[in-house]
Order: sequence, then C-alpha cells, then structure tokens
Amino acid sequence: MNSKYKTVKYKKNTPSNVEDLVSIEEPLEMVVRHKKNNAWIDNSISITMRTPKNDEDLIIGLLFCEGIIHKISDIEKVELLGEKVGKFDLQNKIRVTLGNSENLDIKHLKRNFLTNSSCGICGKTSMDSLEIVCKTKINKNVPKIKNSLITKIPDLLRKSQSEFSKTGGIHASALFNKDGKALVIKEDVGRHNALDKVIGHCFKNSIFDTKNQFIACSGRLSFELVQKALMANVGFLMGVGAPTSLAIDLARRFDITLIGFVKSDSFNIYCGENRILK
Amino acid sequence: MNSKYKTVKYKKNTPSNVEDLVSIEEPLEMVVRHKKNNAWIDNSISITMRTPKNDEDLIIGLLFCEGIIHKISDIEKVELLGEKVGKFDLQNKIRVTLGNSENLDIKHLKRNFLTNSSCGICGKTSMDSLEIVCKTKINKNVPKIKNSLITKIPDLLRKSQSEFSKTGGIHASALFNKDGKALVIKEDVGRHNALDKVIGHCFKNSIFDTKNQFIACSGRLSFELVQKALMANVGFLMGVGAPTSLAIDLARRFDITLIGFVKSDSFNIYCGENRILK
Repeated sequence: MNSKYKTVKYKKNTPSNVEDLVSIEEPLEMVVRHKKNNAWIDNSISITMRTPKNDEDLIIGLLFCEGIIHKISDIEKVELLGEKVGKFDLQNKIRVTLGNSENLDIKHLKRNFLTNSSCGICGKTSMDSLEIVCKTKINKNVPKIKNSLITKIPDLLRKSQSEFSKTGGIHASALFNKDGKALVIKEDVGRHNALDKVIGHCFKNSIFDTKNQFIACSGRLSFELVQKALMANVGFLMGVGAPTSLAIDLARRFDITLIGFVKSDSFNIYCGENRILK
Repeated sequence: MNSKYKTVKYKKNTPSNVEDLVSIEEPLEMVVRHKKNNAWIDNSISITMRTPKNDEDLIIGLLFCEGIIHKISDIEKVELLGEKVGKFDLQNKIRVTLGNSENLDIKHLKRNFLTNSSCGICGKTSMDSLEIVCKTKINKNVPKIKNSLITKIPDLLRKSQSEFSKTGGIHASALFNKDGKALVIKEDVGRHNALDKVIGHCFKNSIFDTKNQFIACSGRLSFELVQKALMANVGFLMGVGAPTSLAIDLARRFDITLIGFVKSDSFNIYCGENRILK
C-alpha cells in the first residue's frame, strides 16, 4: 500500500514540484483472545507500526514466532475489529481467538526469548531460552543451494517486490524453493513484519516444505530475524545486508545456514558452508 | 563495538576463508527506579537489542523521547548493574533513578503515543496523543540550510561513522550544526537506538541549540524517528532513505522540516521547503 505525497525534489541544485509515492505506515493493535478460568479474556499483546494489508498473516506469523501457537489449528478465528478510521479508512485492530488456551501465560509473551530470570541477560541467555522452546523443532533437513543461484536472489527479490519500485522505502521477505522460484513475497516498512507476514502466510496455507526452501530478506540480518526463521523451522536464511554478532551466534548454535551481503557476484557465508554447491 | 568472525566469502563463484568484522548486538534491560507511596520501585521498562557502549546515552534519550523525563535534572543517577556476562563481558542492565517521581504513571510508558482509548487507533490518533504531550515544545526556531550542504551530508555522515566502514552493518544518527559540522554521532544496529543515543548525549551534555542544528540519519525515516526529533525539539530531520506516510504526516502536523532520499546530487523535501536555501 502506498499513497501520493506532494514533494519538492532538488536535483543538481534546482527544485521542482513532483509527486512521490510513499509506503504507508499505520499502527495495528494486536489482541489475543484466550480462556482463563473458563472465561474469555482479551489481551492486547502489541501495537506495531505496519504497512496495511496482510494483517492476518502478520499476527499469525508473530504468534508462531513468539511460540504462542504451534499449529494453525490452535487458532479458532481471526477478526479485524472496529470501525474504519484514519485517512486510509482502515481497521487497525486485529484479534486472534485461541481455542485451547486455558494454560496460556500471556504475561511472558515477548519476553520469553530475551531474558531469563537469575543469571543476567545477555546473548547467551537469550539463546538458552530459545533452545528450551525450540529443542523439538531444530531443522535437520536443510536444502543445498547452488552458489550461482544465491547471487541471483537480490535481483529476483527486487523483481518480485510490487511496492519497492514505487516507493523505494519498504522491506521484503520471501520464501523461495531451492530452484529459485519465489513462492511467497511480503513487504512492509518494518523488516520484522515482512518476515512475520511470510511465515504467517505459509503456516496458514500449508506452504512450508522447509527441506526444499529458503528465506531471503531485503535488509540486514538481526537476532530477531534468525529467531523467526528458527521458530518457523526454516534452516536457510539469506539477506542483502550485514548480519549482527548475535544473528551469527544464533545461526551457529542451531546450525541455520546464514548468508549475508548477497550481491550479484558475491556473498558471505556465516554458517552452513557445506550447503552451498559450487 | 565489533568482533571478528570467520567467514567463507564467495566471489565470482570461488570460495575463500576470510575474517569479517561484525557489529555487536546484545540485549539491554532498561529499568526505571521511581517513588510510589514513598517507597522506591524498580520497573523494567524495556529489553532492547543494542550495540553496546553509550548505554547511558541510550536510556536517557529513550526517557526523553517517551516523555518520561523533561529535563536532565529529573534524573538522580544512572547505573550499569549486574555482573559482566556473555562473550563480550558486558553489563547488560541499566537503571535510571528518577528523583521527583511520585506521580509517574509507568504503565502508560511506550503506549502513550500510539493509542488513545476510545476512538480507534490510527495515525491520526497517534498524532493527537503526541500533540497533547508536545504542545509546549513545538519548535518555532528552525534553521535554514543551503541545498548544497544537504547533498554533502551522506558523505559527511559516512566519514564520521567509525564502525560502518568496518562492518557495513550499523546505522548512524548525527547532530550537525547549520554549517555542516558533525557535533555528535552515534551508531547502533538499531536505527531508533542510534537516534536515542544522540538525543540522550545532547541532553546530558547540554549540546542542543536546535535553532542552529539538524539531525541526519543513515536509514529510512519512520514515524518513530520523527516522533523522537519532535520530543527533542529538533525541527530539521533528514535521512538517506525513504520516509513513511506517517513520518511525513507527523512532520507536517508539527512543521518539522523532513528531507529524504538524500544523495550526492539530489534530495526530496516532504515538509519545510522554505527552510532550504538555494
């Protein structure tokens, strides 16, 4: 989604009036409805700035990546709520109703993976917490990908983005099969949202077959993006930008292939070099 | 801060072993100590992923930008806490003690600006909430800047960054005076953190003289970055990347000069064209 804005463009010291297409950013309130003591409770878990459309994919992906749901049947229904508001006439509240949710500990949501109580917060404790959640789902089936395909990904990703060419200001994440076909591509002003949308869409529509697939992101690779790949059981992640230290540490801890700085003639492998075919 | 990682670099289909410098990302727990019913209470307000160093600037900036503190004397002390942990031997918890804080409503922290109760969440209500907080501080003294200086900023920003040339994976924010001198520059794997660090550093050291200064950011311009500029009473913000719709709307609402896509020969003005000198 984008919108036209009147803009003054300076080019070589000369101003002119132009119209610029701009990516839309609007807040979305995400609510989880769950049971406690046999009564339904609504818990507002997050307000996030996102590019509208695909809100259902976004919240489903987020709930998977935070370990709140484990299979799509955990969800009873997803509803956009409230009147259409604001200049873009949007419903900006979405609610997921969880069926079997009596034991859900919503308080720990969003903090599960970053801290554990006693021994001090740091990258290692963040990863330890993730290991507890993920020990059953570590991916053993990771595809092998030709190096000549990897260098094509930035171009394939760019061509699959419908919004970027218009606004120049939106991130993308995409699920590719090992032959380089883009199966799902989602865009958002937030990098994390774009990946949540892909993951939510894939779970909702049973698209994951992760032993034959990988995910590519348009930007840098942070801890949180690798965490999301891990939670979705995706064992192969690449990005056009740089990884952080903790993204690499997490990838190595769980043997997720992690590739950064992907360009048309080069890339860096931070984990999983044995899965790159010459 | 960065660290060496062994990496396999593919260049023109040929792998080689190299060492790559990577920007460090580690969690930081931020705690506010305040008084309630005459007793001290510690409230953990956020765990954020950040590049270490400048943690004091980061938390002070965040507290200013969220409207929790209004002057530096609101802070009694700032302490890094806990043992040094993790592979980088860091204290990853920081606590700000607020002096006069009996009436602090910590529950509303972080949600102040995104929602208000009844009329539905959207960009407009987010801005309305900000207006209530900011009505006393809207900047009337905004500098005029030569267009030939603006196109030099990406180069000046890059040259002032100590980390980017090493790791290629870190954002920067900088305070410039109107002659183009970089007064403060901070880097972080998170865009928002880099700006919080600049703002915190400037408040702590009484560097702001915003009628003669502007802020430049290395990335895209989101609502949150414009909000931070507004809260710091900075009336002139530019970025190398694209703005979002809500960043533009917010800048126009408060008459903050907002410039995006700054390149060596061009840029786009989304608000405040009268402050650009030919």
